[in-house]
Amino acid sequence: MPRDSVTNSTDIFTRRESEARSYCRGFPTSFEQAKGSELTDSTGRTYIDFLAGCSSLNYGHNDADMKAALIEHMNRDGIAHGLDLHTGPKAAFLEAFEEHILAPRGMDHRVMFTGPTGANAVEAAMKLARKVTGRQNIIAFTNGFHGVTLGALAATGNSYHRGGAGITLHGVTRMPFDRYMGEQIDTTELLEKMLKDKSSGVDAPAAIILETVQGEGGLNAARPEWVKRVAELAKEAGALLIIDDIQAGCGRAGTFFSFEEMGVMPDIVTMAKSVSGFGLPMALTLVRPEHDVFGPAEHNGTFRGNTHAFITARVAIEKFWADGAFARDLKRREAIIKDGLETLAGMVPGAKLKGRGLMRGVDVGSGDLAGEICGRAFDKGLVIETSGPEDEVVKILAPLTTPDETLTRGINILLDAARDVLAGQNKIAAE
Amino acid sequence: MPRDSVTNSTDIFTRRESEARSYCRGFPTSFEQAKGSELTDSTGRTYIDFLAGCSSLNYGHNDADMKAALIEHMNRDGIAHGLDLHTGPKAAFLEAFEEHILAPRGMDHRVMFTGPTGANAVEAAMKLARKVTGRQNIIAFTNGFHGVTLGALAATGNSYHRGGAGITLHGVTRMPFDRYMGEQIDTTELLEKMLKDKSSGVDAPAAIILETVQGEGGLNAARPEWVKRVAELAKEAGALLIIDDIQAGCGRAGTFFSFEEMGVMPDIVTMAKSVSGFGLPMALTLVRPEHDVFGPAEHNGTFRGNTHAFITARVAIEKFWADGAFARDLKRREAIIKDGLETLAGMVPGAKLKGRGLMRGVDVGSGDLAGEICGRAFDKGLVIETSGPEDEVVKILAPLTTPDETLTRGINILLDAARDVLAGQNKIAAE
Amino acid sequence: MPRDSVTNSTDIFTRRESEARSYCRGFPTSFEQAKGSELTDSTGRTYIDFLAGCSSLNYGHNDADMKAALIEHMNRDGIAHGLDLHTGPKAAFLEAFEEHILAPRGMDHRVMFTGPTGANAVEAAMKLARKVTGRQNIIAFTNGFHGVTLGALAATGNSYHRGGAGITLHGVTRMPFDRYMGEQIDTTELLEKMLKDKSSGVDAPAAIILETVQGEGGLNAARPEWVKRVAELAKEAGALLIIDDIQAGCGRAGTFFSFEEMGVMPDIVTMAKSVSGFGLPMALTLVRPEHDVFGPAEHNGTFRGNTHAFITARVAIEKFWADGAFARDLKRREAIIKDGLETLAGMVPGAKLKGRGLMRGVDVGSGDLAGEICGRAFDKGLVIETSGPEDEVVKILAPLTTPDETLTRGINILLDAARDVLAGQNKIAAE
Amino acid sequence: MPRDSVTNSTDIFTRRESEARSYCRGFPTSFEQAKGSELTDSTGRTYIDFLAGCSSLNYGHNDADMKAALIEHMNRDGIAHGLDLHTGPKAAFLEAFEEHILAPRGMDHRVMFTGPTGANAVEAAMKLARKVTGRQNIIAFTNGFHGVTLGALAATGNSYHRGGAGITLHGVTRMPFDRYMGEQIDTTELLEKMLKDKSSGVDAPAAIILETVQGEGGLNAARPEWVKRVAELAKEAGALLIIDDIQAGCGRAGTFFSFEEMGVMPDIVTMAKSVSGFGLPMALTLVRPEHDVFGPAEHNGTFRGNTHAFITARVAIEKFWADGAFARDLKRREAIIKDGLETLAGMVPGAKLKGRGLMRGVDVGSGDLAGEICGRAFDKGLVIETSGPEDEVVKILAPLTTPDETLTRGINILLDAARDVLAGQNKIAAE
Repeated sequence: MPRDSVTNSTDIFTRRESEARSYCRGFPTSFEQAKGSELTDSTGRTYIDFLAGCSSLNYGHNDADMKAALIEHMNRDGIAHGLDLHTGPKAAFLEAFEEHILAPRGMDHRVMFTGPTGANAVEAAMKLARKVTGRQNIIAFTNGFHGVTLGALAATGNSYHRGGAGITLHGVTRMPFDRYMGEQIDTTELLEKMLKDKSSGVDAPAAIILETVQGEGGLNAARPEWVKRVAELAKEAGALLIIDDIQAGCGRAGTFFSFEEMGVMPDIVTMAKSVSGFGLPMALTLVRPEHDVFGPAEHNGTFRGNTHAFITARVAIEKFWADGAFARDLKRREAIIKDGLETLAGMVPGAKLKGRGLMRGVDVGSGDLAGEICGRAFDKGLVIETSGPEDEVVKILAPLTTPDETLTRGINILLDAARDVLAGQNKIAAE
Repeated sequence: MPRDSVTNSTDIFTRRESEARSYCRGFPTSFEQAKGSELTDSTGRTYIDFLAGCSSLNYGHNDADMKAALIEHMNRDGIAHGLDLHTGPKAAFLEAFEEHILAPRGMDHRVMFTGPTGANAVEAAMKLARKVTGRQNIIAFTNGFHGVTLGALAATGNSYHRGGAGITLHGVTRMPFDRYMGEQIDTTELLEKMLKDKSSGVDAPAAIILETVQGEGGLNAARPEWVKRVAELAKEAGALLIIDDIQAGCGRAGTFFSFEEMGVMPDIVTMAKSVSGFGLPMALTLVRPEHDVFGPAEHNGTFRGNTHAFITARVAIEKFWADGAFARDLKRREAIIKDGLETLAGMVPGAKLKGRGLMRGVDVGSGDLAGEICGRAFDKGLVIETSGPEDEVVKILAPLTTPDETLTRGINILLDAARDVLAGQNKIAAE
Repeated sequence: MPRDSVTNSTDIFTRRESEARSYCRGFPTSFEQAKGSELTDSTGRTYIDFLAGCSSLNYGHNDADMKAALIEHMNRDGIAHGLDLHTGPKAAFLEAFEEHILAPRGMDHRVMFTGPTGANAVEAAMKLARKVTGRQNIIAFTNGFHGVTLGALAATGNSYHRGGAGITLHGVTRMPFDRYMGEQIDTTELLEKMLKDKSSGVDAPAAIILETVQGEGGLNAARPEWVKRVAELAKEAGALLIIDDIQAGCGRAGTFFSFEEMGVMPDIVTMAKSVSGFGLPMALTLVRPEHDVFGPAEHNGTFRGNTHAFITARVAIEKFWADGAFARDLKRREAIIKDGLETLAGMVPGAKLKGRGLMRGVDVGSGDLAGEICGRAFDKGLVIETSGPEDEVVKILAPLTTPDETLTRGINILLDAARDVLAGQNKIAAE
Repeated sequence: MPRDSVTNSTDIFTRRESEARSYCRGFPTSFEQAKGSELTDSTGRTYIDFLAGCSSLNYGHNDADMKAALIEHMNRDGIAHGLDLHTGPKAAFLEAFEEHILAPRGMDHRVMFTGPTGANAVEAAMKLARKVTGRQNIIAFTNGFHGVTLGALAATGNSYHRGGAGITLHGVTRMPFDRYMGEQIDTTELLEKMLKDKSSGVDAPAAIILETVQGEGGLNAARPEWVKRVAELAKEAGALLIIDDIQAGCGRAGTFFSFEEMGVMPDIVTMAKSVSGFGLPMALTLVRPEHDVFGPAEHNGTFRGNTHAFITARVAIEKFWADGAFARDLKRREAIIKDGLETLAGMVPGAKLKGRGLMRGVDVGSGDLAGEICGRAFDKGLVIETSGPEDEVVKILAPLTTPDETLTRGINILLDAARDVLAGQNKIAAE
């Protein structure tokens, strides 16, 4: 959705930043400050943020407690970069993560600090599954997005990103995601048949990797029973189950992990985006102990310990996940979002509600229309983006901490924007 | 060099951190604070840091100016995470990078903010070279290290890391680095023959990727004329020259870029490690305009704009690279390091000085011996590591800002440690 | 189905032939002579041949006219090996193939003489499709068999054969064959969705390769409308349609090409097995002129002109395909086979008739049972084999020239064998 | 070297044969008969054959004894196609091969009958080495030629053939062949360094594959001590040694196997071309018993038993290799060839003698010159071809059975042709 009208203030970007830059084309201003669910640009204009760093800012911008803790750490010259040395902040993060996240959910997973990007967490997960099983093939799904480094990219479905590889992507078999062929067809039946048929041509898999809600792929939410069946088939096939919770995790789906209420226990979980709480680069690969078989530094990286992120990540966990209050807030906000999007869906003939929890959107049928709606919304003070194979889904990824009033205000901007665009096109349906 | 003697204070690490953890095994304590060239652990003991985050802390820990700028940014709720939106801090970084780094060196490169890891910068570079040329093959060198995600790992030489892939690594042809077969053999002759022979089996390359000084590979420093010849051969072959300056850049080799005095102009430069100045995750891929052909977000990633890092990176450039003062300091410190290492080399029969600029070390002939020396040095209050195929090189990567006195003190600890170890082995040579 | 009871006469085989030997384990005798549809072993015992060299002997053993022509050629010192030089026998074959096969079917295909194996014809086809389109991905189907050299093996479904590669097989996407998910599900819908969805993860294909009847995969016969739909989807996707007619061609499916009555015109057809008529090694890749883009010898091989095979292949075409008489014989024999197999299917509860034309069999539900039936048949003088992922299909591949009486006699042996085995197992159903 | 002047008689070829046809372009006539070392075309003109089916006709065309045995076999309806069933002719071949070839050379190898092409024998060898070792990497050499199916093509050096793949070729590391960098540099030193350096980037190899004389690569003959050193390094590295004796075997290098006098015992030997003796398609992969680990039909193929070829192959062995007479003839003929080529080399400034045994040629410095000489020779009645990366080597591959007089006559034609061409160019050197 490029709407690139570069002003003088952005000259340095045109002159020196790579053409790979992207979001800045859709939101052509320069941002300076941010607090909670609001962004302020260099002209002092504020915007409600329904993008939230693509779900990297689930707790909003510049959370006061995280900020205070990080400044305190810096003020006492707390270590900023520690490779994978033991540090106090790392220990404190691990303890909080164990106490408030892993232990209550009965998870015995070990925490691997990979390079601080989601792609790196996925690369580590795929490598590990291959090492554990001695197999090469990994099953991924249509419309999945797992990153754009070569290993992860093989598992990513998007042809635009795949085309960037410039070389054969290998080691991944593609299977249809839940409801890919409609409501009536259970795609696990094909998966099962192919896994059990010795002549199917699908090599015994090291792992099955999936997002329970496909964020970039168009907010396709898998049904719990589908995920559970995939988990069973993975087990039967001797394959590890990797749940990529990079976008859907950290509360985005309504619970800390997106799979919590599905009755599955993944062998590996990948996390990034909101794990630091503050938008700082950080990624985790959670691994059940029996699969924790990397040797020392076998998968390594200079920034595998981002100490600043450990500080804020610990605060995030203690502040939001030590009790059930935040989860209850999420239920309420989910209802507000769902309600607003149902209204939006009602405006566009054939539109469909997509997603789950607080990652929801509306498939408005075309990327052009979705892009125009988001563009109009930006003009009105709302930052919101599209997703899906054709960018046809208007997607809300508001901070999970967005006050109800702000949430409603943002949704109203969105609805107004849609009305404007549709009115201009005489396309609006009876509300 | 595992020296894992886990104390009670590290229980959470044994319990919950993945076995992939590594440096913590060689330096079994928990670090808390850091300033300049010194680390302090949880017991209050201080260590001189000759590891510097593997050259990620070229300007030392918690530089006061960078710290102040970052705290100021945070205090005014400056944006922390902005995807690849335009932001003031990004503009300021780009302007400083253009003014003090690129323009004075006659470099017209565009800056691509990749995911904030060196591996990601390398993945972007390799993808781009393949896209630009329509070719798949990339030539990399013996003992090269470029990261461990699948694309970068194919270019990395180390078999331990390669073995972690669990799948065929493809698309890379390996050639001998400078002096790989000794001083007498010019390895570019083989490269030239193979590139020009239509039947050599080496497919026309998209790129040739190299480090001018191989950090992880054992501090092998290429001669300028070798690098220049490789650059010429790349050009003749229609291949892009990628210089991976992740470890050797940012002043480590004595100049900002390691290749500045070699008469070459790489098509692509990868940077990470010290680019943020503060140890924060940040990576760049510099690309000549004619090769800046990625479409918007064709190579993407959530953390491709780490705003905190832009703040400190700008300060680093303005503070250290606006004039020639820092470069002059580097010359003096280089001499101190070289002098100290010559003494070390003199102690061990057959030992060899390795490296260039301020990334130097001594090949002591065996990984066991190098490990023992580093272990003994740690006991005496110095953090220092090994590199090389057999971990046989004791490597100094002190902050470039280390005061002469601290540098000398650190070197003396190292020499004492070596003396202790060698005395224990009756191995010491006449000094 | 190994029934290896090596006698003294086969000592040399145990001593010196590789363990890769296979059929000889199921038919433990030494064959000496063969005529029409009968084999004679070294003890003088004769067997009816329902294996026919896996459909390489569609015209029976030692056809008198082919034999005479070949001996005549040899007697006058006709050239035996001519690389890909022009020779009289090659010209004569091409003329006959054009006149009696290509022209009457409106096919403008060029004939590429590849190395004389089916796998080589498939390798050439896959390479060519990739060259024509500049794409790498080839779509192949579950249970497909296309050979075991590395390129062809990637398209082959069987895990036992795939496992022999010892290296990642790449460049092929697997899709479900017709009726793979039962009668109700049209698997072209998944193919269409995946081809048209830009985010499906299925890269734009260079080709779609299929057998209209999967011989090794268990005699799965695709419906004409399914093949036609796949052909349309290939065209829409800009992909070439490759029909692998190696086993189903040369009359085996009831017409010369297996796809003749399906309303499709493949871009590439691969042929081998019976193309020489006499069981001599010969393979062809037929290519539409616009795709005939290999440079001279770009795909080459020493035996790409097997002149002896050209001699017999020409006779085969002139004798059997110059008019419609043979095709009429095939209809009659097909009915005899079908009738017999229906009887067999009726004996085994749950058994299913498989295949089409004169490549038919019965899925008896288990590889053990199928193996026992074939073993018992051999004892009674019939050579017959199994196919399918679990070797669960008893498969008739009799010479197409088998006299009705011999055919009936062979079928009766098969039925007797089945009765014996089932009686022994008390498994026989009411006939 | 295309000299395509298609006459009326070759219309069918232009109309229907694929553009991949090649030799016919250099020798634009239609061949009909052949006997010993002479070919006769459709106009009755005879040519001396110094191409011999690229060394597939080492015993000449239509050897009378082989012909008689094959006709006798056919007359009694001996089986022509027997898959991999036991047959009398196969037993007889194996017995002769054991008695006259393997046993006298102390070789305990098993014989695997692969698909009847050299490429297939190489594919089997590479798969087997990977299966035996569990490793994927295979080391091949510059200018090597091993076939054009995808697995073998990865090991082939020629860029024209490699380009035909249309997909990444993987699993092979390229090393410089003997004397690739001149006489002074022992290229095994680089191989050794790379194999022993854990950080070289060369993965532990499953096998090292080489031709002792590179036929297609330009008649590069490895020194025995080089081959021996490679064999030692393979053993030390736990890799299998594969000698591809497809072109250099069957007496071409002066002994049955090309490596007989080198003091090495390969783990695997690939054979094809002249192994049938008569130019019929046949290929063998010889495997030491401990590596004979393929399961039944794990590598298979319809034509893996070409019974006609077994008949002639047995006669070839009994006739030529039962005693030392033939080997003595070879010595004498080698001297005649060498002498002639020295004369040729003397004519062209800078020309170099290439090859070994009876596969010899002259590098005349350019493909154009070599092509002109061969073209002129053809006009004068000699069929002879070029090889090398630039087709710069005029190569003699006469039947090994060529009578001395015919050999001399052919060489004289070649020398006359060279004189003509050089005279036309005023390039001739003082003889």
